[in-house]
Amino acid sequence: MVLSKSMEKLVAGNSAIRKMFELGQELAAKVGKDNVYDFSLGNPASPVPYEIKNSIINILSNQEPNFVHGYMKNAGFDYVRERVAQHLNELHGCAYSKDDIVMTVGAAGGMNDILRAILNDEDEVLVFAPFFTEYRSYVGNFSGKLVVVPADTEHFQLDIGKAAESISERTKAVIINNPNNPSGAVYTKETIEKLGKMLAEAENRVGHPIFVICDEPYRDLVYDGKTVPYIPNIIKNSIFLYSFSKSLSLPGERIGYLALKNTADCYDELMPALVIANRCLGYVNAPSLFQMVIADCLDVKPNVSFYDRNRKLLFSELSNLGFSCIKPEGAFYLCLRAPGGDARRFASSAERQNIIFVPLDGFGLPGFVRLAYCVSYDMIERSIPAFQRIASEYGLSPRY
Amino acid sequence: MVLSKSMEKLVAGNSAIRKMFELGQELAAKVGKDNVYDFSLGNPASPVPYEIKNSIINILSNQEPNFVHGYMKNAGFDYVRERVAQHLNELHGCAYSKDDIVMTVGAAGGMNDILRAILNDEDEVLVFAPFFTEYRSYVGNFSGKLVVVPADTEHFQLDIGKAAESISERTKAVIINNPNNPSGAVYTKETIEKLGKMLAEAENRVGHPIFVICDEPYRDLVYDGKTVPYIPNIIKNSIFLYSFSKSLSLPGERIGYLALKNTADCYDELMPALVIANRCLGYVNAPSLFQMVIADCLDVKPNVSFYDRNRKLLFSELSNLGFSCIKPEGAFYLCLRAPGGDARRFASSAERQNIIFVPLDGFGLPGFVRLAYCVSYDMIERSIPAFQRIASEYGLSPRY
Repeated sequence: MVLSKSMEKLVAGNSAIRKMFELGQELAAKVGKDNVYDFSLGNPASPVPYEIKNSIINILSNQEPNFVHGYMKNAGFDYVRERVAQHLNELHGCAYSKDDIVMTVGAAGGMNDILRAILNDEDEVLVFAPFFTEYRSYVGNFSGKLVVVPADTEHFQLDIGKAAESISERTKAVIINNPNNPSGAVYTKETIEKLGKMLAEAENRVGHPIFVICDEPYRDLVYDGKTVPYIPNIIKNSIFLYSFSKSLSLPGERIGYLALKNTADCYDELMPALVIANRCLGYVNAPSLFQMVIADCLDVKPNVSFYDRNRKLLFSELSNLGFSCIKPEGAFYLCLRAPGGDARRFASSAERQNIIFVPLDGFGLPGFVRLAYCVSYDMIERSIPAFQRIASEYGLSPRY
Repeated sequence: MVLSKSMEKLVAGNSAIRKMFELGQELAAKVGKDNVYDFSLGNPASPVPYEIKNSIINILSNQEPNFVHGYMKNAGFDYVRERVAQHLNELHGCAYSKDDIVMTVGAAGGMNDILRAILNDEDEVLVFAPFFTEYRSYVGNFSGKLVVVPADTEHFQLDIGKAAESISERTKAVIINNPNNPSGAVYTKETIEKLGKMLAEAENRVGHPIFVICDEPYRDLVYDGKTVPYIPNIIKNSIFLYSFSKSLSLPGERIGYLALKNTADCYDELMPALVIANRCLGYVNAPSLFQMVIADCLDVKPNVSFYDRNRKLLFSELSNLGFSCIKPEGAFYLCLRAPGGDARRFASSAERQNIIFVPLDGFGLPGFVRLAYCVSYDMIERSIPAFQRIASEYGLSPRY
């Protein structure tokens, strides 16, 4: 009775990821950390780059502490936003200035800024299944409605035809998560171009911009020579979100940014609103020391080979055991079809073997589970016999 | 057209504080930093305590980086919450456990957590004028309605009688900011007891809890031997919010906490909802390194004498010039009655003398302005001749 209606729903359907994460911690306390194989959470095990510590020490040694830890403009330090703009311009041949950049509390903070700025009650936000389950909470924060385009379970690309049918006059935005959590798919340039074409037609029809929210914390984690198209270069009304959580193993620090080209429709209205949203959601500004740290570390490369090694091991071992795996092209998640078709039942079987992963019902992909392989290689190796026992339990036929 | 209706309103009435802050920066660029007297923003000039740097260096030297910068439970690190609980128990004789504490993105993040958890559309939140103007944005984030109890411009305490009249069946919470921004008033134990009695009666009448949101970032900044009552020891349904922004000069880092006693009504429902809100507003968790830092620095005392010296200087000089000042008992703000009664006109006169402060129309206190004296003593001294010129302009009679 004390909770808001929308919070009651959130509590009832509380994040499967977090439940599994806490279950993993309980199990570890019971049977020992080394005997639990926890694939629940996207908490990067790749070592934090040494440049982070160096940068912090350097800032604390050379800068005035009240500047380092003080308030700045709500959009972030000017010099930090200048460097981010320059970095994007060099990478993607754009023409961002600091005024097009807002430093945010992770990409999630940036997404909430956007939704706060544009959503009226019951306005719709389109997502393509499978999708990161927290999008539901973010859209719900502002009484929006999440409209789910069903998954293409063959190629895990975007089903543009179905998306076109799902757009209404209330559609304000489309979230694209590339590479995708949980599928590990990378959407190609061709897919994004098709999306752009469809959206341009839809915008004409509905008479207002439909913003593409590009949620791209995983864009630097891709394998086999894949590349991730830079959506704002293809679709005019795109807002780019980045986070350093995954690429630099800093998820706890909550630091990222959003970038909006000044060629987007309604830029002059939208940009100040995004800055105000960044203030009035209670962050005031993104954490100050880490704004300065990432300004020093924009060119630090993520340890892609760390995850690629894990990916290859997990994919080949599980495929050989007879599991039906979707080969990841990016991010650090592997999706499996649950043998027998019931993801929760499959997760329970795994739990009895001290393996923790997330059923994807809440991600719009029932019958599948997600394994986060941003763990130690060693843990994956040690988990294989337990997977073997589950494979036997389900009567899978090994391929070797 | 692209913005939500509530964001349009926010943009139109954009924070007077931030406007003045940006104006101050522009002026400084034009006439030189030393020739601008900027009293706009609560950005503490008291030096960041040396313990902060020591703690950061110590953590970076001795802890595993992936632990320091990684995800933890959404409520925060267990050991940090344990220390916060213990700290509150020692200070106030309470019986908090870590499960009653959520580490938040400043007190503002904590307030948004609470409002997200309890507000349905059009639910009401009571504030006493004068009030920190951002409360309007926070309540508006979740389509709530701010109900303002008019200011007691004589004593600047809480007008409990008027508050009782303002409570309806939709009232879900009351925000108490003690010491108060902008008035500098400290609400006494007697005032809080009266509030508690009134609210208990109101809760019986409306049939649901009415939570007191205790927004107390300034509670350690009080003068002349004043003490700030600990509201959760007086009013059962209170949620305590603290921030280290002001006391330890860390406003940019966004670190604070909320505490809810397990004796509050609906604790079992509310506590998990607060943790979920803390996740799903996009913060995921409060910044991790600074959680660890403040766990080391809970006993570090703020530099009260730094602000007290400023307070005495500014209050006596301005009073002597003939301005009608409210003597601050806590925080670091001084309110003035605008000579002539028009606060915006008064602010414009001041601007011509390169003095920047905030008219309080948006704080529910028309006809008054706020001076943030969390600045250097030197700047206050240098500003006096400019105040003198304004006093002459308005024909005030000096008291000396």
